[in-house]
Amino acid sequence: MDKKTIGILGGGQLGRMVVEAASRLNINTVILDAPNAPAKQINAVSEHIDGSFTHYESIVKLAEKSDVLTVEIEHVDADALKRVKQKFPHIEIYPLPETIKLIQDKYLQKEHLIQHDIEVAESIPVLDNTEQALLEVGEKFGYPFMLKSRTLAYDGRGNFVVKSSDKVGEALEFLKDRPLYAEKWCPFVKELAVMVVRSLEGEVFAYPTVETIQQDNICHLVIAPARIPDTLAKKASILANNAVKSFPGCGIFGVEMFLLPNNELLVNEIAPRPHNSGHYTIDACVTSQFEAHVRAVAGLPMPKGFTEFSTTSTNAIMLNVLGDKDTADKELEICRRALETPHATVYLYGKTTRPGRKMGHINIVSSSMEDCENRLEYISGSTASLPASLTPKEQPLVSIIMGSDSDLPVMSVGANILKTFGVPFELTIVSAHRTPHRMAQYAIEAPKRGLKVIIAGAGGAAHLPGMVAAMTPLPVIGVPVKGSVLDGVDSLHSIVQMPRGIPVATVAINNSTNAALLAIRILGVFQPKWLNEMNQYMVNMEHEVLGKAEVLEDIGYEKYLTDKLKK
Amino acid sequence: MDKKTIGILGGGQLGRMVVEAASRLNINTVILDAPNAPAKQINAVSEHIDGSFTHYESIVKLAEKSDVLTVEIEHVDADALKRVKQKFPHIEIYPLPETIKLIQDKYLQKEHLIQHDIEVAESIPVLDNTEQALLEVGEKFGYPFMLKSRTLAYDGRGNFVVKSSDKVGEALEFLKDRPLYAEKWCPFVKELAVMVVRSLEGEVFAYPTVETIQQDNICHLVIAPARIPDTLAKKASILANNAVKSFPGCGIFGVEMFLLPNNELLVNEIAPRPHNSGHYTIDACVTSQFEAHVRAVAGLPMPKGFTEFSTTSTNAIMLNVLGDKDTADKELEICRRALETPHATVYLYGKTTRPGRKMGHINIVSSSMEDCENRLEYISGSTASLPASLTPKEQPLVSIIMGSDSDLPVMSVGANILKTFGVPFELTIVSAHRTPHRMAQYAIEAPKRGLKVIIAGAGGAAHLPGMVAAMTPLPVIGVPVKGSVLDGVDSLHSIVQMPRGIPVATVAINNSTNAALLAIRILGVFQPKWLNEMNQYMVNMEHEVLGKAEVLEDIGYEKYLTDKLKK
Repeated sequence: MDKKTIGILGGGQLGRMVVEAASRLNINTVILDAPNAPAKQINAVSEHIDGSFTHYESIVKLAEKSDVLTVEIEHVDADALKRVKQKFPHIEIYPLPETIKLIQDKYLQKEHLIQHDIEVAESIPVLDNTEQALLEVGEKFGYPFMLKSRTLAYDGRGNFVVKSSDKVGEALEFLKDRPLYAEKWCPFVKELAVMVVRSLEGEVFAYPTVETIQQDNICHLVIAPARIPDTLAKKASILANNAVKSFPGCGIFGVEMFLLPNNELLVNEIAPRPHNSGHYTIDACVTSQFEAHVRAVAGLPMPKGFTEFSTTSTNAIMLNVLGDKDTADKELEICRRALETPHATVYLYGKTTRPGRKMGHINIVSSSMEDCENRLEYISGSTASLPASLTPKEQPLVSIIMGSDSDLPVMSVGANILKTFGVPFELTIVSAHRTPHRMAQYAIEAPKRGLKVIIAGAGGAAHLPGMVAAMTPLPVIGVPVKGSVLDGVDSLHSIVQMPRGIPVATVAINNSTNAALLAIRILGVFQPKWLNEMNQYMVNMEHEVLGKAEVLEDIGYEKYLTDKLKK
Repeated sequence: MDKKTIGILGGGQLGRMVVEAASRLNINTVILDAPNAPAKQINAVSEHIDGSFTHYESIVKLAEKSDVLTVEIEHVDADALKRVKQKFPHIEIYPLPETIKLIQDKYLQKEHLIQHDIEVAESIPVLDNTEQALLEVGEKFGYPFMLKSRTLAYDGRGNFVVKSSDKVGEALEFLKDRPLYAEKWCPFVKELAVMVVRSLEGEVFAYPTVETIQQDNICHLVIAPARIPDTLAKKASILANNAVKSFPGCGIFGVEMFLLPNNELLVNEIAPRPHNSGHYTIDACVTSQFEAHVRAVAGLPMPKGFTEFSTTSTNAIMLNVLGDKDTADKELEICRRALETPHATVYLYGKTTRPGRKMGHINIVSSSMEDCENRLEYISGSTASLPASLTPKEQPLVSIIMGSDSDLPVMSVGANILKTFGVPFELTIVSAHRTPHRMAQYAIEAPKRGLKVIIAGAGGAAHLPGMVAAMTPLPVIGVPVKGSVLDGVDSLHSIVQMPRGIPVATVAINNSTNAALLAIRILGVFQPKWLNEMNQYMVNMEHEVLGKAEVLEDIGYEKYLTDKLKK
């Protein structure tokens, strides 16, 4: 796709996944890292450089074979990169060495963000590493506060929570000799993250806003999309875009954020490279974060929408696979359970196992988050056997309920329609007046059980459809059942005349056929299969009536009537 | 994931994509093919064998480094594989050499399928390659008939359409010296294909049934799912499963089928390996055909459902990228347009360009097939610029129509609800009685325009909702608008009392609020976002009423009433 060769500083899993994306586009890559590093394993060129990405001479060797340089880790020698740029002016380096240098020092990064009006947690530099200096911080920020290393910190290494004034000694001991800054305690309710890819022209494209869940300071889970209101997710996305706009150059950036109890968002930190919180994009999004990065640094097209979820109904969970603490390769058990789980994909990085090391990750994708969660439960070993709900089966999509078995003759006609169409459904008795608690439970649990539409039939003072609609956000279709008096108008008005706020989709008296057909039309809104079948049904119906018309015209109305009477 | 090394005979694009899938699982692979073959490029081990997959000694060298042997092409030396199995009894070979041998000879393949009650096109062997023999075929089958090479045929090479008796000479000239058979002309309406993966225990898992479109005898497009009725797709899937069950051993198989005008299905041919018609699975399915093959031959788990579409609303089109006939690398223009198109992914195979050569493929995935088609149009160059419809925008999901502008005061209340929820909608006048043709067009075009739900308001002899419902498969919500007489009961009954077959979801008189809320509930059936917002709305409503109750209890009903009157 492009004749440029991309040189990558660092050949860990991030580099490996960049190489995979580049290979799919016939774009050459060369890696600088230790021999047989994960990224080198999947690229059979002989040009790779064995060496360290913090070593100037090695970077020069890489540059000699590259048209573009990029990084999979920000802890490279940024000054060396600047010198390389001077030595090879024709080589492009993304992210810019200046950006890397700024981001490497987390305090400078914060100052930069503040200058660009990006909200961050309040911080102050610790100018000398003394107990006195920390006590002054404690006076200013109160306890607990965060003591953080300005450089070379990752996965929580380099952070210390100073819980009280008598812990400052311990904190200094833990982080001694490192350049430090202090951050006001941030009582966040969730950690969010947004991957953003920036083009050279400064256009930014945000991936969906996700939720990250840490365990022992290491990313454990990523939930996509974040389980927060839509407006908040959008706010996070804008904040991330603005943050990344502040860095010239191009490439992918990971923006980590805190969501505070008052719904405020603060940027925690930014990584100028592919990020663990973006691994879900491989399976859930149109373009993975790795390909997005390749496209950015190689100057390939980045159209609007290429960072979206693959389809509107995509939900995903990413689970990191860490080297087991006790038994080598025990983490493969998690992977095996993932392989046993539909809608889960395993990625292993070709690394030698070590306790706590990131060995791989697992992506779970489904049209429902609950489904993702159920699958995660099995994979992570919280449930011993694959729950029955996970083995694909015909789960009811539609439920038919009625106030009394006397409604069954009417309601069974609709059930037959669902059967003919092959719509999985359940049918039962739920009475508003005689089983009010069952009704409430049924209505509340319906969405969780995977039901999509409820058809409720009732007669007389017909409360069932409206009461169920009042306790579920699902669409409820009401069938007025005709009683012995009032011709069903009592039921009709009881069902259709709902107050503003709670709709019931009412069909004609006794017409459960139309209730079933309406349910199928509703399913068809997002499942084309049902839409097609409804189309076919309508065509057949038309043919049938046209056929009758033909016969009627053919044999005349008198014979037609006699024939019909005979039947 | 597995300590076994998989040796692959053939290192073209199919092998390459198998290697990619294996690497993701930390499974070792070794390739037998020419130096720098596509599959070798992405696997940096030194153990690859340079040589031919039809050469016994080379296969032995590969076997010496492998625990399992598999193929990416069926034109290997099957007898050599049998001898290798004798020499290295501990090595597993999948597909079985016997299966490869059977499938290599297309006539034997057909006989095998017939023995297993799999429907195939009627064929007879051509025992000697003479004009006389062919004329006899012509007498038996009529013209045209297909003359086919029993072996080494692919991408249409090895097939000749004998159009009349005076073409038999030409046919013999074209296929001279090859072992031949003749096939009765098959007037198919579509070509279908199903990828099926078989476990060693004989369990089979079918991928979705797809449609393949050939151009110059080479696969041009794959449409997933096939645009055929569901029952037919299921039938194709069962046929494919049964065909693959008939071959012992394990691995992935591509089953090509003809769909005849009478809806009959015939198996055309079977490939015992990953297949061009399954490339869409990389982006559209839970597990790609390549990973499925790796799992099968490595004995890894293959759970039910792992071959499904990623989400229920997945649609995909695969476009092959062929080397341009005139200008080298011109095919990259198609790839570039694909990169400019959201929801499209480019795969290039690392091959030197040659006219007509399969250089790569493009997968387009979306929740709507129409969207895939629009994107394909741009990518393939039929439209010069990316259609505006492809740049993501707020497409109306809901339409509000009314018979007259006098209904607007009632209907606008519902429009405001949609606005508050942020549901994109359109609003216009469509009168059943005064603009019947416009109504028909509106109803018919609604699904194509991406509308999901129609809200129709009308008064008096209110025909609009029912008539629209009669001409669209979408759910239609009817709002009875109260006129100057009869209190709206006329409208209510006109709307709700639809005949069996055509449902209208009727809400209370003048209650367009509930129509809008019902539309949102319907969208929420498959888009959790709306379901969540509906939940929130219901919670807010509850709080609001509880708040009023508190005030009422607090200040007493008399003051409450006075206060309310003041407002």
